[in-house]
Amino acid sequence: MTLRWHCAATDGAARAGVLHTAHGEVPTPVFMPVGTAGTVKAMTADAVRATGARMVLGNTYHLMLRPGAERIARLGGLHRLMDWQGPILTDSGGFQVMSLSGLRTLDEQGVTFRSHVDGSTHRLTPERSVEIQRLLGADVTMCLDECTPFPATEEQAAESMRLSKRWAARCRDAFVERPGHGLFGIVQGGVFPALRAESVEALTRIGFEGYAVGGLAVGEGQEAMFAVLDATVPLLPADRARYLMGVGTPADLVGAVRRGIDMFDCVIPTRSGRTGRAYTRSGVINIRNARHAEDPTPLDAGCACPACRKHSRAYLHHLFKAGEMLGPMLLTWHNIQYYQDLMAELRDAILTGTLAATAARIEARWQAGEEERAA
Amino acid sequence: MTLRWHCAATDGAARAGVLHTAHGEVPTPVFMPVGTAGTVKAMTADAVRATGARMVLGNTYHLMLRPGAERIARLGGLHRLMDWQGPILTDSGGFQVMSLSGLRTLDEQGVTFRSHVDGSTHRLTPERSVEIQRLLGADVTMCLDECTPFPATEEQAAESMRLSKRWAARCRDAFVERPGHGLFGIVQGGVFPALRAESVEALTRIGFEGYAVGGLAVGEGQEAMFAVLDATVPLLPADRARYLMGVGTPADLVGAVRRGIDMFDCVIPTRSGRTGRAYTRSGVINIRNARHAEDPTPLDAGCACPACRKHSRAYLHHLFKAGEMLGPMLLTWHNIQYYQDLMAELRDAILTGTLAATAARIEARWQAGEEERAA
Repeated sequence: MTLRWHCAATDGAARAGVLHTAHGEVPTPVFMPVGTAGTVKAMTADAVRATGARMVLGNTYHLMLRPGAERIARLGGLHRLMDWQGPILTDSGGFQVMSLSGLRTLDEQGVTFRSHVDGSTHRLTPERSVEIQRLLGADVTMCLDECTPFPATEEQAAESMRLSKRWAARCRDAFVERPGHGLFGIVQGGVFPALRAESVEALTRIGFEGYAVGGLAVGEGQEAMFAVLDATVPLLPADRARYLMGVGTPADLVGAVRRGIDMFDCVIPTRSGRTGRAYTRSGVINIRNARHAEDPTPLDAGCACPACRKHSRAYLHHLFKAGEMLGPMLLTWHNIQYYQDLMAELRDAILTGTLAATAARIEARWQAGEEERAA
Repeated sequence: MTLRWHCAATDGAARAGVLHTAHGEVPTPVFMPVGTAGTVKAMTADAVRATGARMVLGNTYHLMLRPGAERIARLGGLHRLMDWQGPILTDSGGFQVMSLSGLRTLDEQGVTFRSHVDGSTHRLTPERSVEIQRLLGADVTMCLDECTPFPATEEQAAESMRLSKRWAARCRDAFVERPGHGLFGIVQGGVFPALRAESVEALTRIGFEGYAVGGLAVGEGQEAMFAVLDATVPLLPADRARYLMGVGTPADLVGAVRRGIDMFDCVIPTRSGRTGRAYTRSGVINIRNARHAEDPTPLDAGCACPACRKHSRAYLHHLFKAGEMLGPMLLTWHNIQYYQDLMAELRDAILTGTLAATAARIEARWQAGEEERAA
């Protein structure tokens, strides 16, 4: 049996469910920490597990270049390499080819690009992307698509989305079925509802174990992103998982869960943690700010991560001022913990039919915290 | 009662004992990881504890400049700040004033220097050094001394050692007695046995809770260092702890334990870990070496740290090549674990009267490992 998702409860458009994979069950909505190059940056796998995270993301682009997909396969796969026993979703490599590599050439068959690591030339096709993800051992494989640039005209967005459709069919053909493993299609079409609908229609005709909404959080803003979700999500099959790629802030997640999204990944909590930005129940805190220098209180009194349970804001501030690695380590841990706690709180609210009130309470606390800091 | 050390067993000149402090008992010989600026670099306090480490070192110079001794005191002391419940030994600040700060001026009363952090001017005297260490909450306070440069003429070494003697008396006067806390004197005198003897004679006349051998591992080489220990350690009181400052490699530690040293600190395991050098039961390994790129075996099969228990050399190699923080984090953890395991093995050998055979076996394994790698 391939990978399945089942719905446990709904609250408005929001869903609480369970994703069944070869590496265990994952309650949804779920936030997947990003393990770019075989590691969630600045965290041990034990620390990631300790936050309650059940599923992580790996990046095909980074891993195919270094250490290489065939090498990872010879070493027993990505789960074993990074000591992650839970499920792993891998992206297709397409997004990073566009954003990181040099001298790329796109054609009907695929994309040729230069590695940002050593300048070597590589070729990624739908078939090769699926093969790499199989070599990595991904529980969830993503179709290779072209991430439509923003802004794009409707004509550009249509052309791009139709290429992704043709590639999606090739990915489906290339995918080798294995128990608990699945392939997700990616809805494209920019900010144009008709194109999104055309994309959904084509992908559902092919048939996938889950559906991602791609091409968002690329500069269009939260309002436009939510508008795309409002137009797109209701068209997706109710019995498959829905994944909003590369999103987002805590406020993005709350809004997207309310619109029926089940799965998320984003570098925001890890990247922000490394620069001293913490997401908390009271909003965003920049721990480098001088007002924390002698503050004996925890970053977030409601959080059970080591940064909050064992240390003061003053200590975290000191670590960042002194350039100590423990600063990024602790703030990354906290941010991932906060994202996991937030998703668990939203899931509980869906199960009890109280999502609207819960979301309002969460957002009010963020607002109150921000006002407090401005005072 | 001030801090005490008692001897549990001897084997030749080597001693197994217990240091009794305000923050618990510490079996000796002991290696203290260096927590320079209030953190053992790249490790959480939980990780440090997990290696079996019972006592850490803090650096007065770094902490007085940032975040500041008075601020640490207001925040509840260094133990609370860094979440370390075990004992802490702090150095006097003198060594880093000489090695890190700019524009320093030494006079009979103390030393004036410019901070390497922000260029501000600071003054360190024996009295102020002891006061800072009290503000930090140190279980073991070190006397402010002048670390004699190497090489030095006998005349220079004598002058420097006699200044340190006068400062040691002032530190003793400035030290406030508290239960479980103690002050250690520091034997100086360079590589000149007569000067070392004069220093021991003066310090024991003043009387300290423990005695450090300072001014070594500054370029004189292992043979000269062991010669100084051979000449100096037998002169020290048998009922007090003996601490060899800033030393060293695993081979240095084995040799010094055999010569009667009880306590050590050194940045080698942490600093080496950050650059990819690992100390193992089979000698030194540079994980960045290409021969590890596809090696599925652990760094050290005899080690229980997460780097060895959960990952392959290939993964650690990848992390360093990719510049991932987890590489330094895991190798630092391993190195501290190895140092703790080594000290525990030496202590057990002393307790069972088998130190010579144990040391020979440990050293033979290092040699065999190095030969294997050369083959």
